Amino acid sequence: MSGGGVAVAFQGELGAYSHIAALKFFGPINALTQKTIADVFEVVEASEAKYGVVPFENSLEGSVNETYDMLLETSLHVAGEVKLRIVHCLIANAGTKISDIKRVYSHPQALAQCRTYIKAMGWETVPYYDTAGSVKMLKESNVKDAAAIASELAAEIYGLNVLRRGIEDFAVNYTRFLVIGKEQATRTGKDKTSIIFTTKHIPGALYMALEDFARREINLTMLVSRPTKKTPWEYNFYVDFEGHISDDLVRDCLMALKDKTVFLKVLGSYPASVDV
Amino acid sequence: MSGGGVAVAFQGELGAYSHIAALKFFGPINALTQKTIADVFEVVEASEAKYGVVPFENSLEGSVNETYDMLLETSLHVAGEVKLRIVHCLIANAGTKISDIKRVYSHPQALAQCRTYIKAMGWETVPYYDTAGSVKMLKESNVKDAAAIASELAAEIYGLNVLRRGIEDFAVNYTRFLVIGKEQATRTGKDKTSIIFTTKHIPGALYMALEDFARREINLTMLVSRPTKKTPWEYNFYVDFEGHISDDLVRDCLMALKDKTVFLKVLGSYPASVDV
Repeated sequence: MSGGGVAVAFQGELGAYSHIAALKFFGPINALTQKTIADVFEVVEASEAKYGVVPFENSLEGSVNETYDMLLETSLHVAGEVKLRIVHCLIANAGTKISDIKRVYSHPQALAQCRTYIKAMGWETVPYYDTAGSVKMLKESNVKDAAAIASELAAEIYGLNVLRRGIEDFAVNYTRFLVIGKEQATRTGKDKTSIIFTTKHIPGALYMALEDFARREINLTMLVSRPTKKTPWEYNFYVDFEGHISDDLVRDCLMALKDKTVFLKVLGSYPASVDV
Repeated sequence: MSGGGVAVAFQGELGAYSHIAALKFFGPINALTQKTIADVFEVVEASEAKYGVVPFENSLEGSVNETYDMLLETSLHVAGEVKLRIVHCLIANAGTKISDIKRVYSHPQALAQCRTYIKAMGWETVPYYDTAGSVKMLKESNVKDAAAIASELAAEIYGLNVLRRGIEDFAVNYTRFLVIGKEQATRTGKDKTSIIFTTKHIPGALYMALEDFARREINLTMLVSRPTKKTPWEYNFYVDFEGHISDDLVRDCLMALKDKTVFLKVLGSYPASVDV
């Protein structure tokens, strides 16, 4: 636990990108660090945290599978979204120069996002459970021939040096986080809604489901498919669209959609982020 | 290199699930083990291997991002598909009992698929670059207090013991692999076609694209979205459907689709697998 403000849980150590996303959304928070994304859902369900902040999709790596699976199971609502530009830093203990580095520690997704740079430098990669956690580990072990990849905030928190900033292969590296909680967000007039549905197993089923949105000119902002886990090659569709569940048009659309699907779950409506 | 037959590249060591998929599709092969999925594409493009076998989607974990990204970049064709039931085995050196185990090594996806079992046993997980590679490493280091998660074939190849078979959390655990090569597969009458497209950035764009398939009663067997990496929150759609590119109906559909998309790439037509 750390800091004042509302209790917000996220996966990773202090300085994790989810921590930065939580600060961006809430301002000062009481930060509750968790080991896994599943743990974030659990502590919010148990009311130990009022909100959770979880990564949902990254503009390079795509969807975060664990979050998708937990959204399907949970009774929590999606109460907000945060978009964050990810800037990966090369971080090392005092005294370590770039030429001393032999190994780089970080979360597998961060290592993947810096693939080209790491390959060019000829370093060995060591997957770690968390970006900021790898900085913490470097500090505690005081290793001098290795570096971590994490946020600038992680370097600040643990007092290590940033040797290089922005080492990701693609600059267009954004992560969209969801804010989850027990309460619904109120309508602002510029909202988004997230749903999950499973189509009937007939040809053209997805097309017919999307017809309900197209006819009403409801703009889909995301469509992602995930296996149902029950039957091989059968998919759940995760869809985000513009509008609030209390809008007549949206309510009407979801009523029509219900008849065409074997499963429909509304995750929540929330204010659309003003960021890119 | 190992064995006779056609030269087939795959990611991982001998005994990897991709190796088993290659054997299932081709029978005896000259096995060319590769470090990464990108390497598989490269050796086939360089004609060092005639074919490559790469994982495409898993019924629990979803799409294999690296394969999707490489399919977008490559000039190779999809020439076949293999569906494989994944059975994870707990594998250890001779003399190691289940009660001796403290750590489990495997590919992160295999560790994820055995999450519940590993948690119940209270073992530490250590992510490794490959399932079969973790078996090879156990053999070479002769560690007695750790196990690997991999295929039965991997245990056989490296001469280790299978302590338990089928430790995955969900029995419905299938992986679909694609066979990639320079040549197109010939029409069999029971074929599938894989394509990638990007819709125009207008409301209802995906719906209008799917209309071309629905109108012709062409059955979609998969639809997956992946970020374009160029513009945040813009998606490429990977679609598989029944039919061959030389069918009039399919050719007609793709002509119509071309007008509605900003990008369209046909990966290939190939015989549909007869397995589930």
